[in-house]
Amino acid sequence: MNLILLQSDEIINGMVRLTDRRAAHLHKVLKVAVGDIVRVGVLGGLIGSGEVRALSKGEALLQVTLTSPPPAKLKLDLILALPRPIMLKRVLAQATALGVGHLFLINAKRVEKSFFEASPIRDHSFQTYLENGLEQAIDTVPPTVSIHHRFRPFIEDLLPTLAASDRLIAHPGGGVGLAGRAPALRVDGTTLLAIGPEGGWIDYEVEQFHAAGFQRFSLGPRILRVDTAVPAIIAQIDLARQLAKSA
Amino acid sequence: MNLILLQSDEIINGMVRLTDRRAAHLHKVLKVAVGDIVRVGVLGGLIGSGEVRALSKGEALLQVTLTSPPPAKLKLDLILALPRPIMLKRVLAQATALGVGHLFLINAKRVEKSFFEASPIRDHSFQTYLENGLEQAIDTVPPTVSIHHRFRPFIEDLLPTLAASDRLIAHPGGGVGLAGRAPALRVDGTTLLAIGPEGGWIDYEVEQFHAAGFQRFSLGPRILRVDTAVPAIIAQIDLARQLAKSA
Repeated sequence: MNLILLQSDEIINGMVRLTDRRAAHLHKVLKVAVGDIVRVGVLGGLIGSGEVRALSKGEALLQVTLTSPPPAKLKLDLILALPRPIMLKRVLAQATALGVGHLFLINAKRVEKSFFEASPIRDHSFQTYLENGLEQAIDTVPPTVSIHHRFRPFIEDLLPTLAASDRLIAHPGGGVGLAGRAPALRVDGTTLLAIGPEGGWIDYEVEQFHAAGFQRFSLGPRILRVDTAVPAIIAQIDLARQLAKSA
Repeated sequence: MNLILLQSDEIINGMVRLTDRRAAHLHKVLKVAVGDIVRVGVLGGLIGSGEVRALSKGEALLQVTLTSPPPAKLKLDLILALPRPIMLKRVLAQATALGVGHLFLINAKRVEKSFFEASPIRDHSFQTYLENGLEQAIDTVPPTVSIHHRFRPFIEDLLPTLAASDRLIAHPGGGVGLAGRAPALRVDGTTLLAIGPEGGWIDYEVEQFHAAGFQRFSLGPRILRVDTAVPAIIAQIDLARQLAKSA
């Protein structure tokens, strides 16, 4: 936890009283004393500092000063075939920490039906994992997350409305690597990136994305788990744009 | 499991009899029938196919044909401040799947002592996580893994003996990003990459790496968890080299 995340309505006259896991973190991990300064941020708002004004068992009182905007989002939105629950939890935190703007969790042929019926999708309990990502990355703005139970309505109705200068779909196997696609990325553009399920997209799905303007690329012969592929690909696209800017 | 990993001494006259989790995987996940072909590989050796010749409760008999070398390793060795056990398990599988050659797990000021006393370090049980990475990435050669309980002997005695054309140390905060270092990477070179603990390297440690020829870079204002930073940075270095080659 590199930032203590607050809700705006928790701050009353510049003070916030914490009694939950955040207080426990201040006590047990950061081992703060009265007068210490910790980094805080308001969900959806500014980042600043919290001065510890009082400490008691299970409680902490902070005086909050908010000063800086959160870091810029990546100009990247992620379309992800819904992974199994344990991977989904990790990827929610990873995508948030990396600064993804919008996350579209979609169905695909090789997504198991049970994944939609499991937590954190069934009970919409994924906010926790987004907040973990914000606390890790010193950010306050989570990605928007939407869930799409049917592939075709997503592709036919929603996808055409999404703005992006570059559309990329990751698909294992042969073909062009991201190095082959990188030179075509718009320097100040935004990317819409689609990553498939374990077992990959089926041909029909790749064709649908292709028809919607997506360029296919491969990560090479190694098949990566989604919690490795997501940070690897997002980081590569980010680097490719930075290199294009400095070229 | 995208590859069934075999030990060479399990293959007798071209046949292998599986009775453990690999047999369970064939039965329950791949749901194979007699005559089906699955991908197999020999630890440290070739990749090929296994034809299912017999199936019974908890058992599978495969006829093995080995044909192809494993994928090339990344030309990248990773020096990693030992992460907490749950992260270590993930990072072992990730580094293996990504194709890291050598993995040096080292001590640093902000590594908790208990991490060295916990599984999988204490009981050297990390082979499982390496094999998970191989099974995922369709590879047969795990990285070598070595454990270094003391920082200074590692830096002073071992580090000078390690060959690399480029030495990079990741350190959060300001400074040059990887895009600033990428143009200096040797096109066909090898990288020695150092990634610090949660909480970062201390100044003394960064100075020691600097004195050993390491160039510092920052990932920007976002602080990433090790299971996100490792694939992100490794993938960026890989892309930078690919772009340099195609330039």
